[in-house]
Amino acid sequence: MILLLGASGYVGGAFQNVLANMDRPCFAASRSEHGYATREGLAKLVAEVKPQFIVNCAGYTGKPNVDACESDKAACLDGNAVLPGYVVEAARQAGIPWGHVSSGCIFSGNGPGGDGFREDDAPNFCFRTNHCSYYSGTKSLGEESLGYREVDDGSGRLKWLSEQEDGFIWRLRIPFDNESSPRNYLQKLINYKRLLSATNSLSHLEEFARACLDCWFERVPFGIYNLTNPGRITTREVTDMMLAENKRREKSGQASPFPQAFDYFDDEDEFMQKAAIAPRSNCVMNTEKAQAAGIRMTPVHEAVERSLRDWAA
Amino acid sequence: MILLLGASGYVGGAFQNVLANMDRPCFAASRSEHGYATREGLAKLVAEVKPQFIVNCAGYTGKPNVDACESDKAACLDGNAVLPGYVVEAARQAGIPWGHVSSGCIFSGNGPGGDGFREDDAPNFCFRTNHCSYYSGTKSLGEESLGYREVDDGSGRLKWLSEQEDGFIWRLRIPFDNESSPRNYLQKLINYKRLLSATNSLSHLEEFARACLDCWFERVPFGIYNLTNPGRITTREVTDMMLAENKRREKSGQASPFPQAFDYFDDEDEFMQKAAIAPRSNCVMNTEKAQAAGIRMTPVHEAVERSLRDWAA
Repeated sequence: MILLLGASGYVGGAFQNVLANMDRPCFAASRSEHGYATREGLAKLVAEVKPQFIVNCAGYTGKPNVDACESDKAACLDGNAVLPGYVVEAARQAGIPWGHVSSGCIFSGNGPGGDGFREDDAPNFCFRTNHCSYYSGTKSLGEESLGYREVDDGSGRLKWLSEQEDGFIWRLRIPFDNESSPRNYLQKLINYKRLLSATNSLSHLEEFARACLDCWFERVPFGIYNLTNPGRITTREVTDMMLAENKRREKSGQASPFPQAFDYFDDEDEFMQKAAIAPRSNCVMNTEKAQAAGIRMTPVHEAVERSLRDWAA
Repeated sequence: MILLLGASGYVGGAFQNVLANMDRPCFAASRSEHGYATREGLAKLVAEVKPQFIVNCAGYTGKPNVDACESDKAACLDGNAVLPGYVVEAARQAGIPWGHVSSGCIFSGNGPGGDGFREDDAPNFCFRTNHCSYYSGTKSLGEESLGYREVDDGSGRLKWLSEQEDGFIWRLRIPFDNESSPRNYLQKLINYKRLLSATNSLSHLEEFARACLDCWFERVPFGIYNLTNPGRITTREVTDMMLAENKRREKSGQASPFPQAFDYFDDEDEFMQKAAIAPRSNCVMNTEKAQAAGIRMTPVHEAVERSLRDWAA
């Protein structure tokens, strides 16, 4: 039995579907119904359910986007940084392992070697670097609550290490799939009036959930895993693929599901001035550790193209 | 009616005593009994008690000292950074003002002008500056949860401002009085085997609680107030005063309540290496704002001397 926290959310829903497809038993808990938001409430739930593994998909993301976190700081901190700490505490008390959905948004850029941020790179888009959205700050503190901290080993690269790895941190980054949802990255690109072109790693939602659960079912070594579709992609590449998909459908007499043109901000300065409150994380994740552990995800361009092809408006 | 959160704690107890002495009605709430640790629980308590003012003395300090926070991060964050945000939210929903006990420990040093940190100086011992104890980091985030944030106004001094000042932040710093308690600074100096000499502002506990409540009863303008005894004092000055108090009592045939000698670390490096886990905040607070508002506290040397003279072992 797996205890699934945050089952009513966007990511938690994907975990539920994957577990159902795998025919694996799961207790789907939601915050309002099962009161796991307090240390005591969570311990009580774990004692009742007696799971073999706890998955924490619960988190505070901000609606419609990350800017909303700036005006609801306590709840954002509670959901993203406090709860993970109570999850690992409850798991340790019960003597079982855990998996926590974290985010690549604690990074900004292409990584110290240019080939993406690795699992043991210290976050550079967090409170500690004092350049981040409040959301990213809380997600990074969430990893601290799970035992990770900055370590300067003199290598010139600031490391991110834990003394006790007895669970998984799974890093998601900009979820997408073929289904229209306000949380789907592709839907967001359709909805925003103007876009900012940036280079990012992305995570296909169902592939992400499957990859996380594979870590547990395949008994991959505990630790942090970047679970994004291998590679990097620009916003402009994605919208160009949407225009191409429009054309493909038009040729066969189908309606065009995507806009016929996309408007872009000149640069990040204009975007920050006109559209955003909090700075945004744009980053590339290195996926070699997950791949070496046998966790497979579709290369990002292929995954996006397939979602656009299967797009259900 | 005042709703007092954290009434069972060291600082909350002092508030209860002062309110009783003032003959002011108060509902003394403790976390375990009144379940105010969640957003919903707190809102419910406020709706039941219907206070005119909420005082938040609740917080996570770490026992026996601040090092304990490093290994219980989620609870520390919960008590010091999340709860204050829920307090102000509940107060605003009820249309009443609030007062929150914060700490001077979000600063390190003598302040930008050398005359102590002022209320609108941005914290420099916090997550944002990435040099702090975990405790200090959470106390600073607590002030962020109450609406304060760093503002660079180009003056060369990073400011700490809120757009909405509808309550009080009262900054305590190293509480002491004449009663033996493991939380009393004077008792800590007696108990530690070796001391680190440093310059600090201190707060006499009862005077602090009285000064906080005066802010409310005297209808001082809302905002942040440093409520420390005016002036600065070194650890060595305090232990020298203890030795002098021993002598004074011996002369009149009384027993010596304090050690006959104190051992000091050579410097902060030796202290960090041998005795501490987390870095310590040592700082001087500027008290001009509170004094200008008519909030009086005894100068620090006089207040310490009186506590030593009245020391009840």
